Amino acid sequence: SSEFKIAVIPGDGIGHEVVPEGLKVLEAAIEATGTDASLDFTHYELGAKRWHETGEALTDQELEELRGYDAIFFGAVGDPDVPSGVLERGLLLKMRFGFDHYVNLRPTKLFAGVESPLANPGEIDFVVVREGTEGPYTGQGGVLRYGTEHEVATEVSVNTAYGVERVVRDAFARAQSRRKKLTYVHKHNVMVHAGHLWRRTVEKVALEFPEVAVDYLHTDACTIFMVTNPSRFDVIVTDNLFGDIITDLAAAVSGGIGLAASGNINPDRTAPSLFEPIHGSAPDIAGQQKADPTACVLSAALMAQHLGLDDVAELIESAVEKDLAARGGAIRSTSDIGDALAGLVAG
Amino acid sequence: SSEFKIAVIPGDGIGHEVVPEGLKVLEAAIEATGTDASLDFTHYELGAKRWHETGEALTDQELEELRGYDAIFFGAVGDPDVPSGVLERGLLLKMRFGFDHYVNLRPTKLFAGVESPLANPGEIDFVVVREGTEGPYTGQGGVLRYGTEHEVATEVSVNTAYGVERVVRDAFARAQSRRKKLTYVHKHNVMVHAGHLWRRTVEKVALEFPEVAVDYLHTDACTIFMVTNPSRFDVIVTDNLFGDIITDLAAAVSGGIGLAASGNINPDRTAPSLFEPIHGSAPDIAGQQKADPTACVLSAALMAQHLGLDDVAELIESAVEKDLAARGGAIRSTSDIGDALAGLVAG
Ligand SMILES: CC(C)[C@H](C(=O)O)[C@@H](O)C(=O)O
Ligand SMILES: CC(C)[C@H](C(=O)O)[C@@H](O)C(=O)O
Repeated sequence: SSEFKIAVIPGDGIGHEVVPEGLKVLEAAIEATGTDASLDFTHYELGAKRWHETGEALTDQELEELRGYDAIFFGAVGDPDVPSGVLERGLLLKMRFGFDHYVNLRPTKLFAGVESPLANPGEIDFVVVREGTEGPYTGQGGVLRYGTEHEVATEVSVNTAYGVERVVRDAFARAQSRRKKLTYVHKHNVMVHAGHLWRRTVEKVALEFPEVAVDYLHTDACTIFMVTNPSRFDVIVTDNLFGDIITDLAAAVSGGIGLAASGNINPDRTAPSLFEPIHGSAPDIAGQQKADPTACVLSAALMAQHLGLDDVAELIESAVEKDLAARGGAIRSTSDIGDALAGLVAG
Repeated sequence: SSEFKIAVIPGDGIGHEVVPEGLKVLEAAIEATGTDASLDFTHYELGAKRWHETGEALTDQELEELRGYDAIFFGAVGDPDVPSGVLERGLLLKMRFGFDHYVNLRPTKLFAGVESPLANPGEIDFVVVREGTEGPYTGQGGVLRYGTEHEVATEVSVNTAYGVERVVRDAFARAQSRRKKLTYVHKHNVMVHAGHLWRRTVEKVALEFPEVAVDYLHTDACTIFMVTNPSRFDVIVTDNLFGDIITDLAAAVSGGIGLAASGNINPDRTAPSLFEPIHGSAPDIAGQQKADPTACVLSAALMAQHLGLDDVAELIESAVEKDLAARGGAIRSTSDIGDALAGLVAG
């Protein structure tokens, strides 16, 4: 029997409502599959409340403690009463960078029964491999002459051959085991320094994957295809910021961010990977049991898969598929949906 | 009688096909309105062909020469046989930066009769004010250890109080004369240096426009609303890169980039403004008379408006509206559409 130590961080806002549902369905699936594994959950109260109390988002010591877990299950981050960026950079990004989550994996699928805002969505089934440890997310740059009319604020996008190559190779491998099509997305006609590094890297790694067809889209053009022909995508690989933007759009066209899961993955397993819905803390609906926990439940499935519990992952996914197909326009609370999914998983 | 000197730069690809149609309709509208103005067009052969011949995209001397015009009418830039970025940075961005086009104006409207890829587009009528002279478009940054496994490529987004404030003020003024709603779009939860400058600037300028309601969206969230509720937007103000991305998406949901016009405006009129369709050179369909010149024609209307020829601008717009309403699924060549519009303008 294997035991997995999981750190659970609900974070802010609706994170507190969706995370319990994710865990509920995950545990139900482990039981239903008779999987000989036990999950040991340790809850961490991190986020706005804790920051107000202590002024800390995540201490270096906590980061080191979290390193000892097999995975991290995360809710959402961000609160209107905390200066924007403090929790995002201090908690979530600190883990993504600290644990080298260089593959930010964002599968996009239009499930049967789910309505898309598109008139003719067609089949949507692709995965975005978003670089997670560099690009414009490094936090580098700064402010000069703060608050004066001469203020200058800079942001530095840092891109390395090392960092780009490993994520590009990961994306090619995923394309190889899917429909063998890789689209890389950048703005290499404007950001020539970073863009050309990306391009040369894709061209180089492509030689190792002769079966994978490669094409390129500028980020702006990518958003067009996302609404006119999302079926054209199989695997997309892109930088941290472009990936952030296009995955919200991808979620929107495939039924909304209430359904979009993600994994912040360290493929080398030198530190725990982190699984979270791609949605934010949604302060406008927090505490009202209005949030759809499906994205969080699907993130639990991604976590199960990462831990090698493939049966568990598949059972959760098929429960979600069944629930979505039967949903119609019914309005259910966060825990109603979690209960329904746990019920479907139990069979 | 006033005379305007216009520099015409078709550029690359379909730029050569759409620009003549734009000029055709513009001239027809001047004649039809009996406007006491004459437009004096000077053609510049700049783009891939010229670059291959001379190795120059736009010399500093040409830039200075162009400064003497009242406006620039531009087609498109980019060619598969020229290294990506050379023409974009060397020609188009060189003018945007050199002529201080700090308001990159991109109106978005779903015209009657035009199909949107959205199932329920609702009314779409907003304008994006994209900053055009700083942000991640500066070209700053560089490459270290080129081509080695230790390569580092950086891009520096530069944002100044001066640059942000002037564009934000322009956007507020536009909102004031429209539906009085301004949405500013950034990623201030991640890019805290630039994002907070934007936020403080919006808050400050808002005091001058107490009637304008202001809200904020992260860029990723903005793409969601673009497909789920584009009617919520009136004026959007955002940085150079975010504006690039969301305006292609905005064009897509309102009928495609074949219809999307733009002005690169220097509101202080210290240098000529530049008008261009937002689409690119589309090498895949270039030379086949397949491109829709409507975006270019509408850009001519924006130019007319900028020159104070409001009647001309209105006549062109109403001709476009009529043509779009009557279009149906008919397939017409680039010049067929231009002829039809010129005909409608003539009455
Ligand atoms: C909360 C924020 C830091 C985050 C990001 O920008 O990466 C979010 O938008 C996401 O997509 O996971
Ligand atoms: C051609 C390119 C440099 C340009 C940009 O990125 O600004 C284009 O995409 C646009 O939107 O005008």
